[in-house]
Amino acid sequence: MPILVMKFGGTSVATPDRIRRAAKRVGVEVAKGYDVIVIVSAMAGETNKLVGYVGETSPLYDAREYDAVVSSGENVTAGLMALTLQEMDVPARSWQGWQVPVKTTSAHSAARIEDIPPDNILRKFGEGMRVAVVAGFQGVSPEGRITTLGRGGSDTTAVAFAAAFDAERCDIYTDVDGVYTTDPRVSQKARKLDRIAFEEMLELASLGAKVLQTRSVELAMRYNVKLRVLSSFEEQSDEAGTLVCDEEEIMENRPVNGIAFSREEAKMTLVSVADRPGIAAAIFGPLSEAQVNVDMIIQNISEEGRTAMTFSCPVDQVRRAEKALQDAKERGEINFQELIADTDVAKVSAVGIGMRSQSGVAAKMFKTLSGEGINIKVIATSEIKISVLIDRKYMELAVQALHDAFELEKA
Amino acid sequence: MPILVMKFGGTSVATPDRIRRAAKRVGVEVAKGYDVIVIVSAMAGETNKLVGYVGETSPLYDAREYDAVVSSGENVTAGLMALTLQEMDVPARSWQGWQVPVKTTSAHSAARIEDIPPDNILRKFGEGMRVAVVAGFQGVSPEGRITTLGRGGSDTTAVAFAAAFDAERCDIYTDVDGVYTTDPRVSQKARKLDRIAFEEMLELASLGAKVLQTRSVELAMRYNVKLRVLSSFEEQSDEAGTLVCDEEEIMENRPVNGIAFSREEAKMTLVSVADRPGIAAAIFGPLSEAQVNVDMIIQNISEEGRTAMTFSCPVDQVRRAEKALQDAKERGEINFQELIADTDVAKVSAVGIGMRSQSGVAAKMFKTLSGEGINIKVIATSEIKISVLIDRKYMELAVQALHDAFELEKA
Repeated sequence: MPILVMKFGGTSVATPDRIRRAAKRVGVEVAKGYDVIVIVSAMAGETNKLVGYVGETSPLYDAREYDAVVSSGENVTAGLMALTLQEMDVPARSWQGWQVPVKTTSAHSAARIEDIPPDNILRKFGEGMRVAVVAGFQGVSPEGRITTLGRGGSDTTAVAFAAAFDAERCDIYTDVDGVYTTDPRVSQKARKLDRIAFEEMLELASLGAKVLQTRSVELAMRYNVKLRVLSSFEEQSDEAGTLVCDEEEIMENRPVNGIAFSREEAKMTLVSVADRPGIAAAIFGPLSEAQVNVDMIIQNISEEGRTAMTFSCPVDQVRRAEKALQDAKERGEINFQELIADTDVAKVSAVGIGMRSQSGVAAKMFKTLSGEGINIKVIATSEIKISVLIDRKYMELAVQALHDAFELEKA
Repeated sequence: MPILVMKFGGTSVATPDRIRRAAKRVGVEVAKGYDVIVIVSAMAGETNKLVGYVGETSPLYDAREYDAVVSSGENVTAGLMALTLQEMDVPARSWQGWQVPVKTTSAHSAARIEDIPPDNILRKFGEGMRVAVVAGFQGVSPEGRITTLGRGGSDTTAVAFAAAFDAERCDIYTDVDGVYTTDPRVSQKARKLDRIAFEEMLELASLGAKVLQTRSVELAMRYNVKLRVLSSFEEQSDEAGTLVCDEEEIMENRPVNGIAFSREEAKMTLVSVADRPGIAAAIFGPLSEAQVNVDMIIQNISEEGRTAMTFSCPVDQVRRAEKALQDAKERGEINFQELIADTDVAKVSAVGIGMRSQSGVAAKMFKTLSGEGINIKVIATSEIKISVLIDRKYMELAVQALHDAFELEKA
């Protein structure tokens, strides 16, 4: 029988009653003839409670014990979901990560799935089981310790199972009904997309449209797993939600499919840096060691052997960045006259795979912003994305203006 | 290094702060040179919460899923305890049942421990680990599913580890500071016993002095594990609490060491039963099938081929007993004239291994009760126990009078 993977997030399984609703959705797919692998998160709030216990117990905790504690929430949901399905006369059983087994690396709290031997679950499907309920977010290390994949890891579990079992599709049930052209709280004209390409989803996810964990999208892209994002709180048809898929499966590629944004950005400028070979490495090495997530980088044209280097990073990493750079200066590794931090900026990005083949997108974006009197501080582009840093107070205005300019409200 | 097993119950690990207090006790034993195996229960209230979820989800639940859900509370405590010990610079790690492994039968929710191979934990002790924190109450079946040992099973886990690792002692930390001659709420003169024999403890435990799970005491007796019961809420010396041990290790055996009682008893009498071979089996077979816990049984002298049969059982099983017996009568398996239930009785027992070698204990007991004007309804005796059924309203009076008569307040 064809296999379907269905993943339910924390809000979708927050109470026994919600678990029942989710189980009914599973029952619908079983009735269609699918063998189903259900991946569950912990009941909403449980993981935070457990993380709180760990923090209270040990500020610098042993990640192996953290994983052992924090993974227990998913085990509870998996058992309850299996029981609920059994109550509906659907043959089901729960699986914890080590029982499958979900083999991961030993990088506790950020483990990577290495292998999911499908034999045990396939044998049970062969014996008449129709649903395998698997605790998401967890696995087992080569040493036999419990690992977790990091926050949001259940999405990754779901995609990895879809790949390992060659599933027809991986449905991610969550509390939103799909991927939107932008955040509906910022633009009322935001429209749900029926389909979106993996690459676009990656840009949107990492830019703040927190629907799917980035890693899960990367994995889906690598193994060409059809991912569908849909709401567990609405009646669903086969066409509901947003399908995240290969760009070949998307008929018409508009130049821009979404406007993403990130509110808490900072722009930092090193003034009058000695411009010599290796200077970029000397600057960004210490930043990387200090775990500063540098995003955009711009180097001015050099004059008389000196230049200005500008980069952006999240606002809450500015202190760390300043310290790392001052320390490097004191160690004589870099030399700059001044370090200016502008903590009052936001990033707005236009994303679309159609950009590759259509010109004029950047020009239209800049013209739109200038038409609203918005000054662009930094520009960065990739094949399918154009990002700008602007004053934070203009962020909503910029998103709405760009959404209008690219006519994203139209299907 | 000698090995010590320490078990902490739910109230002793109810919060991160209490876990810290428990960990300090563990640290004291580590400092003395012990390698310690700590067995933990779930944080107080957690198991009930999980049992509630299961009940809400599925009234007739699959015990395998029940076990998978309900065992997760202990995993959380084990991880937190290991983290707390690490914070105190004590090398520790947590172990879930399947990791040790604690091999059990497949009787889910009431599994029996079959084997605990000590190799994995001993290897870690050899590598410098000082404390193995083990999730109590759980194990793994031959099929690789998670099992639980039934409520209170963590005591049994502790004793089984003490036996498997040949531990010097098994310390059970709980919310009482030891075993008393009777319930201090009933007699203010109740005195904590320094030592008590396994057999006495078994009689006291099954009679309602709910300090230790009966099975754990049986197991300790079989493998001659020295068990100590003590409070996790008081500063402890080496002599604290009550040592449950072989009777040879108790110097002076008084005839009576404790007065136990059970408030919610019922006395049932079958009037005018045809007295024929096999009649007892015909009566108590159906009761056993109906899961009625029959305690005392008395058969009157037969007259003209008819007799009266009296037995006691918990009050809340009277309805079930009546139905089972009426059904058997209707099926023609037994024949009685009348079934009388007296639901207003209590059981009081005097327990002591010294009884074996000292006569006059029963006589003293009966005389004491008669001196208080208390009528005895049923008497049952074993080697080390004399039990009587009396009107419930006299229960406290009987306990206090017997406690005085056997001078149990004196050390």
